[in-house]
Amino acid sequence: MADRTRAASPSQVKLAVFMHGNSNYHMAGWRHPDAYADSAENIERWTEFARTMERGKLDMLFIADSVGIYGVNNPELLSYRDAIEKFEPFTALAALSVLTKNIGLIATCHTTYTDPYTAARMFASLDQLSGGRAGWNFVTGGNREGALNYSRDSHMEHGDRYDRAEEFADVALGLWDSFEEDAFPRDKASGRYLDPEKMHILNHKGKHFSVKGPLSSARSPQGRPVLVQAGASEPGKQLTARVADVMFTAQASFEQAQAFYAHVKGRMASFGRSPDELKIMPGVSIYVGRTAEEAEEKFQKLNDLVPIEVALHSFSEMLGGIDLSVYPLDGPLPDFSGNSARMSSPPSYVKLARRENLTLRQTAKRAVAGRAHWMVKGTVKQIADELEHWFKGGAADGFNLLPAWLPGSLNDFVDQVVPELQRRGLFRTEYEGSTLRENLGLPKPRNAHTKAREAELVAT
Amino acid sequence: MADRTRAASPSQVKLAVFMHGNSNYHMAGWRHPDAYADSAENIERWTEFARTMERGKLDMLFIADSVGIYGVNNPELLSYRDAIEKFEPFTALAALSVLTKNIGLIATCHTTYTDPYTAARMFASLDQLSGGRAGWNFVTGGNREGALNYSRDSHMEHGDRYDRAEEFADVALGLWDSFEEDAFPRDKASGRYLDPEKMHILNHKGKHFSVKGPLSSARSPQGRPVLVQAGASEPGKQLTARVADVMFTAQASFEQAQAFYAHVKGRMASFGRSPDELKIMPGVSIYVGRTAEEAEEKFQKLNDLVPIEVALHSFSEMLGGIDLSVYPLDGPLPDFSGNSARMSSPPSYVKLARRENLTLRQTAKRAVAGRAHWMVKGTVKQIADELEHWFKGGAADGFNLLPAWLPGSLNDFVDQVVPELQRRGLFRTEYEGSTLRENLGLPKPRNAHTKAREAELVAT
Repeated sequence: MADRTRAASPSQVKLAVFMHGNSNYHMAGWRHPDAYADSAENIERWTEFARTMERGKLDMLFIADSVGIYGVNNPELLSYRDAIEKFEPFTALAALSVLTKNIGLIATCHTTYTDPYTAARMFASLDQLSGGRAGWNFVTGGNREGALNYSRDSHMEHGDRYDRAEEFADVALGLWDSFEEDAFPRDKASGRYLDPEKMHILNHKGKHFSVKGPLSSARSPQGRPVLVQAGASEPGKQLTARVADVMFTAQASFEQAQAFYAHVKGRMASFGRSPDELKIMPGVSIYVGRTAEEAEEKFQKLNDLVPIEVALHSFSEMLGGIDLSVYPLDGPLPDFSGNSARMSSPPSYVKLARRENLTLRQTAKRAVAGRAHWMVKGTVKQIADELEHWFKGGAADGFNLLPAWLPGSLNDFVDQVVPELQRRGLFRTEYEGSTLRENLGLPKPRNAHTKAREAELVAT
Repeated sequence: MADRTRAASPSQVKLAVFMHGNSNYHMAGWRHPDAYADSAENIERWTEFARTMERGKLDMLFIADSVGIYGVNNPELLSYRDAIEKFEPFTALAALSVLTKNIGLIATCHTTYTDPYTAARMFASLDQLSGGRAGWNFVTGGNREGALNYSRDSHMEHGDRYDRAEEFADVALGLWDSFEEDAFPRDKASGRYLDPEKMHILNHKGKHFSVKGPLSSARSPQGRPVLVQAGASEPGKQLTARVADVMFTAQASFEQAQAFYAHVKGRMASFGRSPDELKIMPGVSIYVGRTAEEAEEKFQKLNDLVPIEVALHSFSEMLGGIDLSVYPLDGPLPDFSGNSARMSSPPSYVKLARRENLTLRQTAKRAVAGRAHWMVKGTVKQIADELEHWFKGGAADGFNLLPAWLPGSLNDFVDQVVPELQRRGLFRTEYEGSTLRENLGLPKPRNAHTKAREAELVAT
């Protein structure tokens, strides 16, 4: 395989696709006339999506996850909430691993609700099954519903979650070094399946975990999965700078994205890492039209499918719980100042709405459609211009595509935007290698024990 | 699918195949000249095995598992120990689920080292992916190495493990009833993805777990996975009688198996269950030859591949830690009485060895080859006679095949023994249905909330 591997070009973008059970990125995505409303737990549909991604030479399919249903206490709104119906990520990606050849497979796994031995095994196994295409979206868990499904009264405090996550990462990294590359000669003649010298017992004893090891898995094709981080908090950025290969992030504007990019990359030096070793990929929701008007219409059509009570409820949550029922829906966006104890400064979409003189109804629908992420609507040329601007302007190494509905948004991107990016030399026309690391242009990590052994040999 | 489903016949045996990473059932199986020594984490090999099983119309592929490597402190012996290299079961079975059509897929999952919400999700997802072929080998974990990988100083005490397991099972059963069959209309026109009336929040609060629910998965094709139990202890048998669909068990003789069978089935009535609702399947290791001598030779050849120090070490463990180094290897089997503080009565293979005047060397090799399970060596006719005897004599509803090496033992069984069983009418010639429950002749469990709703309708 090595001989067909070309180096991934740093002058090309990396592209991921966000998947999340029944909820595509737009909350009414499943209602789009062309959407597959039945795709949440339908592996045939997922296979079609994954193969479309490979047709477009995309880097990775990323399964977002939560271990509790957010908003479950408002059942009437659940039809529009996040992924009330979904595959468990490891099993879905393991199934896709044998039905695809190139696409990277990123599973979200919560450090707060599992053990490092379990997580390390799952990812090692997925990396074996896929021939080196596994990745881990490393999250601590963002809502209280998860805690209530895991025998806890309350959600673990943010600082504690990250304290645990840091140690969790170290244990997993240690377990993936349990066996060196050549630890399993499996030699029938001598009867040596294992070379015991190449096995390493971790014996980790820390604040949160004590884990002996070894992991019962040969070193996997990538050495370890690609590590993805998405937490934008202080400890999240710190963990990213220290160990992550990829960062997913929500950035609403170029300036904000550029500052964030510089800041996170700047923190890597203190961990002895080069900025190239991390790919920063903001999320982006894209609406393609033959004209800008057509793209805007596509977006409006989806927004029209969100019931106003759902939009208001979600918008209220985004504003920290402000009661919106007291304001006229079709009047101008109200001044929340008398009602905004919980909101320190109005979010960017509120400022924008005021500038455009939108009504409360219009603002609510727009806010819940975009959420905190960047949104681009327009012609193929306009979209490619924007992506190129972010990429060349130091705001992104690539993008995490948030399909508003499936399969439409994904097909639009692969059939229309990808060829334009390729024409500009901004995106690959063939996969560079067989593993996700090769395609991302990231080195394969060496086993720490092998490195130590070689250093010793040089020293003597 | 329902219309092509015939009822599974109670006059036919059920057949499972035991798989366990690199260690096939015979500890030197990987050294057999025809064995695939590289199959432990090789999905192409596993796909071949699974397809062979489907060619033979077998019921299920069962992945044994442990979360720690037993005997890791004796690295020189590890080449012959249990599964030092292995796939994680859920990921391996999820991959196989999309490469096969009929074979049942049984994952071992440890209740001691995971949470019921995680386990319930994994199995629901596997059942969705496979179109209703998932099963759960429900274990508490048998060795201390597992504990040491999960931040515990010592292995949880047996009674405590089962106390936890009983509650674990109840929580999982409750979570699988989170949504009724028709809970997800996914109706674009009305905007109802979910019918909230058909969603049920568990709100379990128990001694070991508090779990709110719901599980974020539609009711799976089987309603819930086939539940498999293998613990032969008192609490293990109790759990089996209460909830299990299948029991795997180690029985060395017909008489012992028959008594065990009657005993376990007899306990079911107190839980309101009929004996038919549980399939008892003893393990069996089979060596097929054109003559009885050839079969014996096959067995001896494998035994010759076990180094004597490995055999002695394992035999000593089986005898509760007796020091065997003080006895002459090729002398008659010693009388351990001066050295047997830890052994209450000599196991059956020791008695047998005395009767046959075997040496210590011969006895040790035989004991470690058979372990605690039944072993049958002979011609196709002899083997079929034995299986028929156990089945018709009330000692088994079917068998858990323990292939000594792969692919050979499996091929021998499928190509030679299966046709003979079919000729006798003892085994199916076509799968009866599309789900594992249908093939096992087990009813699909109904959702408890649906049942309650219907009972209420009848009452009013």
